Amino acid sequence: MAKKHTDIADLGAVKLLDHITKAVETKQPSTVKGMGDDAAVADYNGQQCVTATSLLLEGIHFDLTYTPLKHLGYKSIIATISKVYAMNVNPTQVMVTAGLSQRFSVEHMEELFDGITTACTRYNLDLVNVALSTSLTGLTLSAAATGAAPKENIVYRNGGKPTDLLCLTGNLGAAYMGLQLLKREKTVFEGNNNAQPQMEGYHYILERHLKPEAQKEVIELLAAQHIVPTAMINVTEGLASDTLHLCKQSNCGVRIYLERLPIASETFKMAEEMNLDAVVAALHGGDDFELLFTVPVTMHDVIKRELQGIDIIGHLTGANEGAYLITPDNQAIALKAQGWK
Amino acid sequence: MAKKHTDIADLGAVKLLDHITKAVETKQPSTVKGMGDDAAVADYNGQQCVTATSLLLEGIHFDLTYTPLKHLGYKSIIATISKVYAMNVNPTQVMVTAGLSQRFSVEHMEELFDGITTACTRYNLDLVNVALSTSLTGLTLSAAATGAAPKENIVYRNGGKPTDLLCLTGNLGAAYMGLQLLKREKTVFEGNNNAQPQMEGYHYILERHLKPEAQKEVIELLAAQHIVPTAMINVTEGLASDTLHLCKQSNCGVRIYLERLPIASETFKMAEEMNLDAVVAALHGGDDFELLFTVPVTMHDVIKRELQGIDIIGHLTGANEGAYLITPDNQAIALKAQGWK
Repeated sequence: MAKKHTDIADLGAVKLLDHITKAVETKQPSTVKGMGDDAAVADYNGQQCVTATSLLLEGIHFDLTYTPLKHLGYKSIIATISKVYAMNVNPTQVMVTAGLSQRFSVEHMEELFDGITTACTRYNLDLVNVALSTSLTGLTLSAAATGAAPKENIVYRNGGKPTDLLCLTGNLGAAYMGLQLLKREKTVFEGNNNAQPQMEGYHYILERHLKPEAQKEVIELLAAQHIVPTAMINVTEGLASDTLHLCKQSNCGVRIYLERLPIASETFKMAEEMNLDAVVAALHGGDDFELLFTVPVTMHDVIKRELQGIDIIGHLTGANEGAYLITPDNQAIALKAQGWK
Repeated sequence: MAKKHTDIADLGAVKLLDHITKAVETKQPSTVKGMGDDAAVADYNGQQCVTATSLLLEGIHFDLTYTPLKHLGYKSIIATISKVYAMNVNPTQVMVTAGLSQRFSVEHMEELFDGITTACTRYNLDLVNVALSTSLTGLTLSAAATGAAPKENIVYRNGGKPTDLLCLTGNLGAAYMGLQLLKREKTVFEGNNNAQPQMEGYHYILERHLKPEAQKEVIELLAAQHIVPTAMINVTEGLASDTLHLCKQSNCGVRIYLERLPIASETFKMAEEMNLDAVVAALHGGDDFELLFTVPVTMHDVIKRELQGIDIIGHLTGANEGAYLITPDNQAIALKAQGWK
């Protein structure tokens, strides 16, 4: 073991990743894109194959006291294929490896795989590999997804240009507030086993946490309209963090207009009930599985007219202009990512 | 949670996998091979892309009290790319996701990734994605590897025919005996902190466990000799189990000749010292990362002449002739896999 010990929290996850991979170079002729995007890209005779992976760990990414195994299986697929969609590619194959501790039974695995195959049916995916392993300490779910598209259709994080419009699917912070509700009810339940969960009126935010969806229809809509975004990223860490990733890769700054952030009414209501700030949930909540993408400013009218449910929340700027959230009274607040959790 | 609970151990891992995936069908035109082989295969304009994954869990697949993190990083790559080689394909890209509990420092991650990048250099791999996550309970390492080849070069488990020769690279049981030695020394050390480990003379079996290699050179040799095996499998569960997988997929029986099993002298010596049976280690030890493949019987002389270090350990038979290990005195012992560990 090493003599000197630097806390990962002190360095931060992003810097740690930069640090340990700084010497990595790609040399294979088939490698089109290595690190730094939602997925890796390889070229096979002009067809480009996108591969993404995800890892869900019990106690970190899910809590089985309030997560049905079927939903968890579904979510493990969504967490992976959403990264392939974020390259503007339809995922077609998925692979799953599960590490299981002794407390899991055959029936538990049936539930888990019911969720996995339900997601495969909904998203038209072939489940091409499943492996099982024992685990000492709970459930581990690892998944990989692949899909292919012609070179000109693949969208990276690094193609954004100053003045490009920043567009967002769906709405933000709902999954985060759904999780807060589940955590609250767990605490209540632990204090009093006769307590009934108080979740009425919050179906939408609960579903956004427990059974999220990927943006298949948006990718199909973009294709139907022959729109290829200049840059795109999967919103999973939180809008702030993911916007900064896109800006860094595109070497741009950004202005996001606070009043344009799409937030669902249940998200606002739950935040109010819990004395939390819905905007903070929208900026930093994570697990939204929405897509953030940029298009040239000339496409403003097309986006407004043809892409229903997509909001233009801001625009890119020159890198030296910084990354800011603009309030309705025109205050500019520096956009910051949250650290290693 | 389900009402009825069937122990996974009662059903067994192989039957559980069959059970939960029995309804899975592949529908995507690009899917060439789904479940049931070392890796999945997809077709892109005639070039076929092979994708394999692996998952290493602390306490199950490795014990950090005697596994240096650098070796573990190296092994995580070997465990994944060995499955791509087992399709007769050179892996070219790898992706790694690590789940880290709080006890890991930046310096630990440097060691781990030193091993990963060392393997990438040795095997000419591009590291195209790295992701980090927190973990509650130790270290989790998930990896994926891809490679591509023309359709006619890909070798599956299911192409073996009766009378085909059964060929094996390297030797068996060494990694298993290396692991037994490490476990013994750990027990001694725990009983007496002043004890010095007694590992002299066992460098080879220790390295086979701690820093295994994949069969890159064998795949290159086969290509140079224009030999495409009829079937191939990565030997990781143990020769018995992996031979039975190949036989099942090829719908064949098998006869393996006991005296032809290649076992290294250190493996024999350690087994003797520990009152273990080296043949049992060879049949069931696991983590050998050797390749087991079949070729038509007409290639006997070519294999003997051109493929040094490869042993012909038996041959396939008709499925109704069963799977047997043949002793030197011509006794036939039914070949059996071990159960869920």
